[in-house]
Amino acid sequence: MEENILVKLAKIGSMVDPYMEKYLKSNCSEEFEEIALYQVKVGGKRVRPALVILSAQAAGGKIEDALPVAAAVELIHNYSLILDDIIDRGEIRRGAPTVWKKYGLSMAILAAVHYREAIAEALNDSKHPLKLHDLLAKTMKTLVEGERLDVLFEQTGRFDEPYVVENRRKTVTLDEYFKMVYAKTGALIEASCRAGGIVADAIPEVIEALGVYGKNIGIAFQIADDIIDIFGKEEKTGKAQGKDIIEHKMGNIVILLSLEELKNDEKEFLSSLLRKEPISKEELAKAIELIAGTSARDRAYEIGERYLNEALQMLEKLPDSDARRDLEQLAKFILYRMF
Amino acid sequence: MEENILVKLAKIGSMVDPYMEKYLKSNCSEEFEEIALYQVKVGGKRVRPALVILSAQAAGGKIEDALPVAAAVELIHNYSLILDDIIDRGEIRRGAPTVWKKYGLSMAILAAVHYREAIAEALNDSKHPLKLHDLLAKTMKTLVEGERLDVLFEQTGRFDEPYVVENRRKTVTLDEYFKMVYAKTGALIEASCRAGGIVADAIPEVIEALGVYGKNIGIAFQIADDIIDIFGKEEKTGKAQGKDIIEHKMGNIVILLSLEELKNDEKEFLSSLLRKEPISKEELAKAIELIAGTSARDRAYEIGERYLNEALQMLEKLPDSDARRDLEQLAKFILYRMF
Repeated sequence: MEENILVKLAKIGSMVDPYMEKYLKSNCSEEFEEIALYQVKVGGKRVRPALVILSAQAAGGKIEDALPVAAAVELIHNYSLILDDIIDRGEIRRGAPTVWKKYGLSMAILAAVHYREAIAEALNDSKHPLKLHDLLAKTMKTLVEGERLDVLFEQTGRFDEPYVVENRRKTVTLDEYFKMVYAKTGALIEASCRAGGIVADAIPEVIEALGVYGKNIGIAFQIADDIIDIFGKEEKTGKAQGKDIIEHKMGNIVILLSLEELKNDEKEFLSSLLRKEPISKEELAKAIELIAGTSARDRAYEIGERYLNEALQMLEKLPDSDARRDLEQLAKFILYRMF
Repeated sequence: MEENILVKLAKIGSMVDPYMEKYLKSNCSEEFEEIALYQVKVGGKRVRPALVILSAQAAGGKIEDALPVAAAVELIHNYSLILDDIIDRGEIRRGAPTVWKKYGLSMAILAAVHYREAIAEALNDSKHPLKLHDLLAKTMKTLVEGERLDVLFEQTGRFDEPYVVENRRKTVTLDEYFKMVYAKTGALIEASCRAGGIVADAIPEVIEALGVYGKNIGIAFQIADDIIDIFGKEEKTGKAQGKDIIEHKMGNIVILLSLEELKNDEKEFLSSLLRKEPISKEELAKAIELIAGTSARDRAYEIGERYLNEALQMLEKLPDSDARRDLEQLAKFILYRMF
């Protein structure tokens, strides 16, 4: 199953890439093209444009009508990656230097601004452009809020940013976690599915069902990422195990659920580790062992399954079709990819 | 004259401010509002929204139809200021800390993204939104190019940005200067005037005349800024005299014109000073003296007047009106403000 859906994503990705390139090259000087194209050329799974296209097809629409807005949402994703890497000082992504690391901060900021205008141009070429401009402006403001919360959920660091130091959260509730995760990950996936419905001229109920599907798989996706972050081995994931702990991020559901269960002294150990910089390999290993001793992993997984099931239920409101079955597969892949 | 037009700008500014605030507050969390509103609350002359409104009126349109897009162009200007201050590490603007200096880099980047979406929302509320989305997307890509060239025209610095160090210009021609200045300053002023024509439902010839007017006053504005930079006393301008020299910027028409005239050893002195960091007060004074000994100031001023006259000629294509007379005054103020 996994292979099948990955092959499909790659195929859809290859359809959307020329569109992204077109809008990035439009009104772009020859000299700036290398920088403008770098982020999208580094690759990516193209999940979001696949969701736009499959949602449009599942709602009875045509793939041609979905391509410009599919390119737009993947450009939004890449725009946010360029900026997240600046904010988090990330130096490597998908095995290559990040944009700021490769071209410097000034050029990375200019590249991001250029991406945002390529997005506007792609939306202008779509069906129902005003609806899409409106939906995606709101979505990007929501992304800002998600990133802001994610930064404020960090337990230490950013000493050159007094505002963050003064306003960071000492504790994070599950409600706050879901708010952050929806804003940071769920909103754009929701918007991708809604956009597919919009360009398919779907009735409001269908657009709503697609949106709720997207929101739920978005949150399930983030929960899966959180589990993989704490328990996934570096050999398999390509990322350091426990990266969220190393980066002091309390916005991870496995960490939050484990804190509910740990005894006072263990809880104190994990909380203070999140505020300690740098932490040793031994401390990290002990933290992961403590978390593994709780039911946090199983509970997080169960919560992820609830979101997945909610998403799958929404699909039942659509007529059966190849695209609908692909959306089902994609939803399951998101949660089950780790096993 | 000067006072009259400044009073008018302030009046128009006060009409546009509530619109900017509305779009910045829309889809904004309560906690983020302070950061979102900071840049526009620091002030500014509101030249660009005044140009939108006066252009709309001069083309027979109504002020109400011009307000959302007037807010959008002033938000674009402020968006570019937030990012320029990050790129140039500027710590003070209009007598107050810049956004990144006050709230840190992460929050400044998030504020900029939020501004861009407020712009999209304002354009969606305008007449002819698709035309405006298109015009302003293109304009913002042009701003990116202008800022990129301005950075590459710097003669030293940014040692943490290898791409800039490797690609910076050793020499800058007048053609390259005008390309940079149009992109950095002229394009948005041109777009402001065009936008006024568009929301007034003007015929293409009128929109074109307004656009050419705006482009020319934009370039004249930058030439005036360059002269003020080299010769304006700090007591009067609030900026260090010779700031462009201190910041190694070769993208200043007075510097470029003086380099054409200076004898070999003087030329070598000025060129190498632009590559030296830091430079002493004595060196800066000597550089300004050398420049003052050439006809660069007079020639720059004459070139500025040519752009001004080109702008004024364009206005003759419009019927006489109060708004047209205000546009004339505004154009003259831009060049004559220094005397």
